[in-house]
Amino acid sequence: MTNTFTLVAEPGSQNMYFTREFDAPAHRVFRAHIDPQLVPRWLGPRILEMVIDHFDARTGGSYRYRHIDPENKEEYGFFGSFHEVVPDKRIVQTFEFAGMPGCPAIEMMTLEELDDGGRCLLRGTSTYLSVDGRDGMVNSEMESGMAEGYERLDEIVQT
Amino acid sequence: MTNTFTLVAEPGSQNMYFTREFDAPAHRVFRAHIDPQLVPRWLGPRILEMVIDHFDARTGGSYRYRHIDPENKEEYGFFGSFHEVVPDKRIVQTFEFAGMPGCPAIEMMTLEELDDGGRCLLRGTSTYLSVDGRDGMVNSEMESGMAEGYERLDEIVQT
Repeated sequence: MTNTFTLVAEPGSQNMYFTREFDAPAHRVFRAHIDPQLVPRWLGPRILEMVIDHFDARTGGSYRYRHIDPENKEEYGFFGSFHEVVPDKRIVQTFEFAGMPGCPAIEMMTLEELDDGGRCLLRGTSTYLSVDGRDGMVNSEMESGMAEGYERLDEIVQT
Repeated sequence: MTNTFTLVAEPGSQNMYFTREFDAPAHRVFRAHIDPQLVPRWLGPRILEMVIDHFDARTGGSYRYRHIDPENKEEYGFFGSFHEVVPDKRIVQTFEFAGMPGCPAIEMMTLEELDDGGRCLLRGTSTYLSVDGRDGMVNSEMESGMAEGYERLDEIVQT
């Protein structure tokens, strides 16, 4: 069974909404989001190497990481803070691409158990301070990068 | 000269926009926003006592405080994280009223010098994850509380 990634970004809105199911219980998907050993193994496209500068996934913590293109050594930095981290249920955090400063977002990710806990549903909302900021991210390769990242996450949570 | 507080919250939007001028240079207004000794002296209405649990106003830091009604001892808790703190210029942070959980916001506050630095302009944007979340705050006594808070801030930055 294929777990499809869906992303909705209505024109003129500041929001993106996305969903993804996983063949794994919520606690495994949650752990892959907060453990700095696991995050670099799935977040983003396969072609980029992820280097974490710091990653403190608890309420009031913060993070910074870089995606590095091994071909040309170009770096894409991202940073943010954790507003609320509720184990196995919810992460609310900020997000900003350092290459497009001044366009921060607030993101909420929730997990729900499905099928008595053998599967789960991830729902995400990203809200940007402006429509332009949101459009800038939508028009990047964010969507394909997210879809590929979740395929990599499948491999981690199933093993 | 009166420095008027303006707040705009269009129907159906997730945003609030506000402005306020001060008869003080930007660095003084900025400091009153980040110094945990000064913040409780102005943030919110005069009638409530403010108690800070923690307040670490730097990029990647976080805060939690309570407004306490001295008459009935009722407490109103607020918490969030600092996404970006740029001295004398900009603060991007999250904000949530603990009494209305699930409605976090991201806020950007910028300061611009006016009149060769003797005065400054504060601009704020608060963006909620949902229109309902924003409306919940607009329909509270937030606006009058903010206006009164900035009057208290006048007293601090001018002395």
